[in-house]
Amino acid sequence: MPDLSSLALPHIAKLHAYTPGLQPTESGWVKLNTNECPYPPSPRVAEALRREIGADGAALRLYPNPKSGPLRDAVARLHGHGLSERNVCIGNGSDDILNLLIRAFCTQDAAAGFTFPSYSLYPVLVEIQDGRAATIDFDRSMRLPVERIASSTARAFFLTSPNAPTGVAFSNAELERVLASYRGLFVVDEAYAPFANEDAIPLLARHANLVIVRTLSKAYALAGIRVGYALAQVEIIDLLDRVRDSYNVNRLSQAAATAALGDTDYHAAMIAKVKATRDRCLAEFAGKRGWFTYPSQSNFLFTEPKNARGETGPAVAKAAYDFLHARKVLVRYFPSHALTAPFLRISVGTDAEMDVLSATFDAWLKAPNAPAP
Amino acid sequence: MPDLSSLALPHIAKLHAYTPGLQPTESGWVKLNTNECPYPPSPRVAEALRREIGADGAALRLYPNPKSGPLRDAVARLHGHGLSERNVCIGNGSDDILNLLIRAFCTQDAAAGFTFPSYSLYPVLVEIQDGRAATIDFDRSMRLPVERIASSTARAFFLTSPNAPTGVAFSNAELERVLASYRGLFVVDEAYAPFANEDAIPLLARHANLVIVRTLSKAYALAGIRVGYALAQVEIIDLLDRVRDSYNVNRLSQAAATAALGDTDYHAAMIAKVKATRDRCLAEFAGKRGWFTYPSQSNFLFTEPKNARGETGPAVAKAAYDFLHARKVLVRYFPSHALTAPFLRISVGTDAEMDVLSATFDAWLKAPNAPAP
Repeated sequence: MPDLSSLALPHIAKLHAYTPGLQPTESGWVKLNTNECPYPPSPRVAEALRREIGADGAALRLYPNPKSGPLRDAVARLHGHGLSERNVCIGNGSDDILNLLIRAFCTQDAAAGFTFPSYSLYPVLVEIQDGRAATIDFDRSMRLPVERIASSTARAFFLTSPNAPTGVAFSNAELERVLASYRGLFVVDEAYAPFANEDAIPLLARHANLVIVRTLSKAYALAGIRVGYALAQVEIIDLLDRVRDSYNVNRLSQAAATAALGDTDYHAAMIAKVKATRDRCLAEFAGKRGWFTYPSQSNFLFTEPKNARGETGPAVAKAAYDFLHARKVLVRYFPSHALTAPFLRISVGTDAEMDVLSATFDAWLKAPNAPAP
Repeated sequence: MPDLSSLALPHIAKLHAYTPGLQPTESGWVKLNTNECPYPPSPRVAEALRREIGADGAALRLYPNPKSGPLRDAVARLHGHGLSERNVCIGNGSDDILNLLIRAFCTQDAAAGFTFPSYSLYPVLVEIQDGRAATIDFDRSMRLPVERIASSTARAFFLTSPNAPTGVAFSNAELERVLASYRGLFVVDEAYAPFANEDAIPLLARHANLVIVRTLSKAYALAGIRVGYALAQVEIIDLLDRVRDSYNVNRLSQAAATAALGDTDYHAAMIAKVKATRDRCLAEFAGKRGWFTYPSQSNFLFTEPKNARGETGPAVAKAAYDFLHARKVLVRYFPSHALTAPFLRISVGTDAEMDVLSATFDAWLKAPNAPAP
């Protein structure tokens, strides 16, 4: 019998898989750990799905539109700025798009650049590709290291803006300072841009090497359907389409996404609600509690909890995390790096959920050594 | 401005994308070109989808189960033979599974083997991976070249059984003759096995290097939802999970697939209907018309049309294809190779659709030089 592990490629045999946030299957959690939207998607989504399913699901027997054609068109029309459907590639989530970019552009001799911290999937995708990562570290100021990125020899550079997990956004002026000299593919991962004051889409017309990546998971309340997209020059979209699975997005997700993008009023109202709650909570953490919290332009907050003795640090963050977890309030923390370990990342939920969170923090501060209930 | 094509990896820049079968968006076609099922899926699918969508689609705001856990469990229970959910990996279509296998096992130094003809996606996946393909040709007899596969040094060998595009199935006895000496990963792509007399699942317990790949696209009438799976040893499933996107299958597809697999009576009846129509059409092509047609254990027929003068060959097949196409009967032909060019591949539709096909062939035989209508 062959030794199975010796059959796998060496870089795969030693690979550690990406760890997604906990997705509890039982109810009762205040789930603030994976930056989902706390509100349901546009009612047009359920309508469009019922239409696609029909009486008996007969349409599901047929393959989907291979290019997600109508959805490409909807994306192009939504963003305007002279974009056509030829400037759009649809992915099975934006993770699919990021993977296509790595596969088309990055290898051992063509590094993939990204900052630390940022979306922790990038290094995993590079490892799967047996590629080479070029990491540029932020310091605690979270100021964009413009010169270091601009002079990077990475074949493609992935910048999450607004950044995850801090929520800090980078201005178009800063991005253009990078683009003025960076000669690789500059990928701005705008998963959270609908919650920001600005986005980089107006820059596409001026910079051929700019790619913008979006997702419907956060700002359209559709994490469950897995749809994301890339905006770029036609030549780049064509390259992604060669690597893309020809039926990567199923019929139901295409229908749901197209409907969601069309309901711009609902979208705007939902974004406004999330931002209002975010800003209220930011004021609470940074103000009333006096916890260092990054100014967020996303749908989450990155905050450094202080315990009742005024201490901060990894042990304090872990204690707060555990206290919340034991009371079924789920947030995220990233203990593996000095910059992130003293912090918690908290998705913006409903006002009621954030009140539960706040009350649970109050309880933690009153009983810092309380055992789990 | 950087030269965009020079940024792409060289093997990607010269890559030709996989060409999926035509998916016409307008109605009125008799669509017999991509081996979809002509009947709707189990009614439980629409019910399960409506339940998942609920009143307002609120569940869609949450990420799906990252491992498609309940679906893995349903697959394991369906197949029995001591399989547990740890022996199952769920893909965004079986194409996703095939891609994961190539990425985990194949590269320049570790060839991917397959036969010609077989599923034409394999060489595309190898090209995307910048890997090396080792092809073993069938001759017109379509007898399995057991010794050549058994002695292949390919790291993984992909065998489509029943074969596409011929529909010929290989027996477990033949597969075990390969497995007796082949030391790589032996992947049996059973996309069409539910239409065959036998499948290789009982062999899993005896051969650690065997992987079976299945899809719900054909035999469960669910091409539109993109779900496929691998059955294999736990060690192999663990490797695939490292390469797999952590949310590769969306909520709706998970719900639909789980419901479809549970309705075994509906499935059996649908398979029986397709097989009855297939066998009737096979008798018509091979008998009444006297066209060489492979004995199919799939849901399609590979037939070598004879024109009114009794001639066969690529030009005859193309003329028949064009005549059908002009009358909105869509079948598939593969003109790029001598073995396949004289044939048409015809998916098994409803009896009524096959009657239209038959009448159109009759019209072609009566008016072989007729211009398109």
